[in-house]
Amino acid sequence: MVKELLKRAPGAAFAYLGDTARTPYGNKSADVITQYAKEDVAFLIGNGATDIVIACNTVSSVALDALREAFPRVRFFDVISPAVEKVQTLFKKQAPLKIGVIGTRATIASGVYEKQLREQIQNAEVVSVACPLFVPLVEEGWTQQPETKRIVRRSLALIRQKQVDALILGCTHYPHLLSVIRASLQKRVKVIDSPSAILDHIEKEAPELLKQEGAQTYYFTDASPHTDSIARRWLGREVQSKLATLG
Amino acid sequence: MVKELLKRAPGAAFAYLGDTARTPYGNKSADVITQYAKEDVAFLIGNGATDIVIACNTVSSVALDALREAFPRVRFFDVISPAVEKVQTLFKKQAPLKIGVIGTRATIASGVYEKQLREQIQNAEVVSVACPLFVPLVEEGWTQQPETKRIVRRSLALIRQKQVDALILGCTHYPHLLSVIRASLQKRVKVIDSPSAILDHIEKEAPELLKQEGAQTYYFTDASPHTDSIARRWLGREVQSKLATLG
Repeated sequence: MVKELLKRAPGAAFAYLGDTARTPYGNKSADVITQYAKEDVAFLIGNGATDIVIACNTVSSVALDALREAFPRVRFFDVISPAVEKVQTLFKKQAPLKIGVIGTRATIASGVYEKQLREQIQNAEVVSVACPLFVPLVEEGWTQQPETKRIVRRSLALIRQKQVDALILGCTHYPHLLSVIRASLQKRVKVIDSPSAILDHIEKEAPELLKQEGAQTYYFTDASPHTDSIARRWLGREVQSKLATLG
Repeated sequence: MVKELLKRAPGAAFAYLGDTARTPYGNKSADVITQYAKEDVAFLIGNGATDIVIACNTVSSVALDALREAFPRVRFFDVISPAVEKVQTLFKKQAPLKIGVIGTRATIASGVYEKQLREQIQNAEVVSVACPLFVPLVEEGWTQQPETKRIVRRSLALIRQKQVDALILGCTHYPHLLSVIRASLQKRVKVIDSPSAILDHIEKEAPELLKQEGAQTYYFTDASPHTDSIARRWLGREVQSKLATLG
């Protein structure tokens, strides 16, 4: 997500918060995820944020309504609706449509993608699968190992079997597995990843945000060598991060 | 750990706390792990505990001294020293000895096993390897899959190559992978698991704790269907759990 942002708007001002002291969120309950998301947002507002991109499918799926209610003055951008929008654009006239969605356990259990896809696209058939092993594999940098290829292939068996037209990568970690995921699907399947969908959406709806130049600050709630190495690997450079205390 | 306790002392009174709202601890920093451990202990004391088993290698490795200092009246049992003790017992007269240790990133980085083994056993050579993918595999119930076998085999390559005499499973999740781990090692390697080592230790040092019958209470800081299913799978029965609020 940050990588995609930096590619499109290298000078854009932003503050990034990674709740590394409590991640991963993906297996946690909706109550706990919502509570954490509120604390995360309060921190960012306290540090000057007026517009917040929820760059996490789990939080977007589970906590968006609660966040909008708790912080009515903030403009929130979630990662779900832009992906749904992208499916619509890609398949304008073709229906019926079979759409696969993969994500964390909490994202899939929320049913939010399914609901939005069915509301927006006539005759959409949705096949959702939780892939809880993908996040640890990506965080360990196991993105090309033969074991990873086999786990991805096995996890996507239902998606392949249902012969979907499109697959939404409903977790910002998954684009790191893009080539392995593509290799597990029929060639004609269109793959939609949330980092590029959300940035397309912001470029269209709020282009001014990408033009405001200024400081780029990275906050983490826990600083460990592991966090540093993930940030370095993902962004391709050192990140000067600050420790954030929430609540 | 609880399973082993229930096997040996089915009626023993205990309160169990699983900090599911913030797990896993294994990749987090020593500071954050220590802070969480203090909150966990304070909760258990508030619920009547006088003796506390730190049934987590990560917390035992990183936070034990800080916990003893912060809670001087509590008797703590850690999982490190019983495993070291067991190695001593198993190999009484044989030296030099090569001992493998596997654990989370935080456990291995602490160097605690290495330090204790070198102090207690003359001429001990220690080979430590972090295996951060084992916990997610176990929590997903992927304990016998061919992918798991390959990941375990790859992770234990150095341990196998060094031809260790013993391997300490330095994480309470790892016994769930016991058969797969054994199959990745030379047959003569003695495998030491912490649940059984800690219970041997308690039976010897504080047998009265296992004889006090009474309530068995399970607290979790987050209640999700995932947590319930793990508890059910590991204990082989339904668990009536209570929600714990820390701090």
